[in-house]
Amino acid sequence: MRTEFDFINSIKKRYRLDKVGDDCAVLPKNGATDLLITSDMLVESVDFRLEWAGPEQIGHKALAVSLSDIAAMGGMPTFALVSVAVEENLWKTTFLDKFYKGWHKLAAKFGVVLVGGDVSRTQGPLVIDSTVLGEVPKDRAIVRSGARAGDGIFVAGSLGGAAGGLKLLTEGEEICPGPGRELIRKQLQPNPQLAAAKYLLEQGLTTSMIDISDGLSSDLTHICVASGVGAEIDVSRLPVERALRELFTEAEALELAINGGEDLALLFTGDYRRGAPVRGATRIGTITSHARSIETIDAGVRRKFEPSGYRHF
Amino acid sequence: MRTEFDFINSIKKRYRLDKVGDDCAVLPKNGATDLLITSDMLVESVDFRLEWAGPEQIGHKALAVSLSDIAAMGGMPTFALVSVAVEENLWKTTFLDKFYKGWHKLAAKFGVVLVGGDVSRTQGPLVIDSTVLGEVPKDRAIVRSGARAGDGIFVAGSLGGAAGGLKLLTEGEEICPGPGRELIRKQLQPNPQLAAAKYLLEQGLTTSMIDISDGLSSDLTHICVASGVGAEIDVSRLPVERALRELFTEAEALELAINGGEDLALLFTGDYRRGAPVRGATRIGTITSHARSIETIDAGVRRKFEPSGYRHF
Repeated sequence: MRTEFDFINSIKKRYRLDKVGDDCAVLPKNGATDLLITSDMLVESVDFRLEWAGPEQIGHKALAVSLSDIAAMGGMPTFALVSVAVEENLWKTTFLDKFYKGWHKLAAKFGVVLVGGDVSRTQGPLVIDSTVLGEVPKDRAIVRSGARAGDGIFVAGSLGGAAGGLKLLTEGEEICPGPGRELIRKQLQPNPQLAAAKYLLEQGLTTSMIDISDGLSSDLTHICVASGVGAEIDVSRLPVERALRELFTEAEALELAINGGEDLALLFTGDYRRGAPVRGATRIGTITSHARSIETIDAGVRRKFEPSGYRHF
Repeated sequence: MRTEFDFINSIKKRYRLDKVGDDCAVLPKNGATDLLITSDMLVESVDFRLEWAGPEQIGHKALAVSLSDIAAMGGMPTFALVSVAVEENLWKTTFLDKFYKGWHKLAAKFGVVLVGGDVSRTQGPLVIDSTVLGEVPKDRAIVRSGARAGDGIFVAGSLGGAAGGLKLLTEGEEICPGPGRELIRKQLQPNPQLAAAKYLLEQGLTTSMIDISDGLSSDLTHICVASGVGAEIDVSRLPVERALRELFTEAEALELAINGGEDLALLFTGDYRRGAPVRGATRIGTITSHARSIETIDAGVRRKFEPSGYRHF
């Protein structure tokens, strides 16, 4: 069966859509600034569960995933729209009031202003569509296609925490002390890396960037395909979320770090011999000239790295 | 129970959202131009039915309703995003290919370029969120709040056709000859009035405008509330869709014209003693200084005009 990535590529080719395919579309604004825009749809039972996430957390996450797309371009967010399709029984509760409270709490942190959206009735699961606008200095947006052989590969943030939280929730561990609680927070209320992105843009050494929403394996593949390059990943250097190693086996923790998405960590490449990358970033490997060949090196053993992150279809 | 309009107003007040409440948000772009943005969510079984509408018609309508919001500000559309939540069984068919075909056919007519969106899995009804960007000369966007006592009230387009089509479909009249077919086309494949809107903006006499998406009674109320004025409507002058009178009683036809939405006709006000309104527009009444008092005059009888157009809740 075709994946959603196949479908989007087919539409992109058929209608020659050259602005589709990065974390955000980059549109002309004025002489100094480009406009960024991104949309993310979140569906109940697929992207979140009402049993696990409170309405404020759902509001937070709906905005956070789009802010993370703005971060992935090196941009800063400005305005947003939120559309929701909601069942009559949920409508009658205070759900939406709390949803907007959580949304606005995160929005206020970054000065994002709500300018529109829609409220619709549905007879099915809650659906949220989040659209965020942002800005980046003209012609400076960091796209997926700029990685060059020899560039270092970096992650800003840690890997696998949100996926570990989902695993705990799926297994019924809704109330966890200590490390479990931290993983669940990362799943339900992830934070976009806007400050790191701003720093990277100003530094000017980043050649490509993406936010890890589908999983490192998938998102690194997106960068390699877009840039026509390959990559070598040193598994021992992956910034595996610390709490994972306290609750799971080493193999499970690595699997979550490699294929789990939703952490909103940033994956970027650049020639950082000339300067230090952002604080909290870890070098995990090197870009190679072998197009589409992505390999891991683990205790001296070389393996093919297969994209197996989250897919809807 | 609170309506979605009550809810949006409460959110607007609580978070002081001064850009929410018109057909589009107006945002600064550059020295000569303002940016417009609007989002509309369409839900299966609420806004459309797969038994009635073909995938290309659904694609057409999803874009058309947002283009109509751009028209209502006097703007021209530029870029768009479409997000869809789709069930696995529908995903496996050619539905989405045909949906995007219908979407692009209308987009090409107005030079609108698809720049993003999302594809998500759902276990419920198909949900589409359509976001359109547009442009309008700086500080010239036509808002709902500019109507002044003495202004004429005009409709560009005809009223009730889309609602009549829905009535026929609901009653099982899916295959109709002549006038019924025209009504069903207006329901399934309505056309935004962008050319009329452009003409009105250039003419510079329009004081307020809205697209009739919820119904004349509701949308005229939106203008009167936003402008702090009242209105008198001459029922005999309403541009009732001609085919309605061939298929329904006079009372039914009037009810559909007054409370039926989705025609994407434009409702606008202005002092047109100085110039002719746009071709195809009809004067239906006059703005008065009696805030929020909306009355109809029908064969000399004055009645209160109650907003009873479409509401989700």
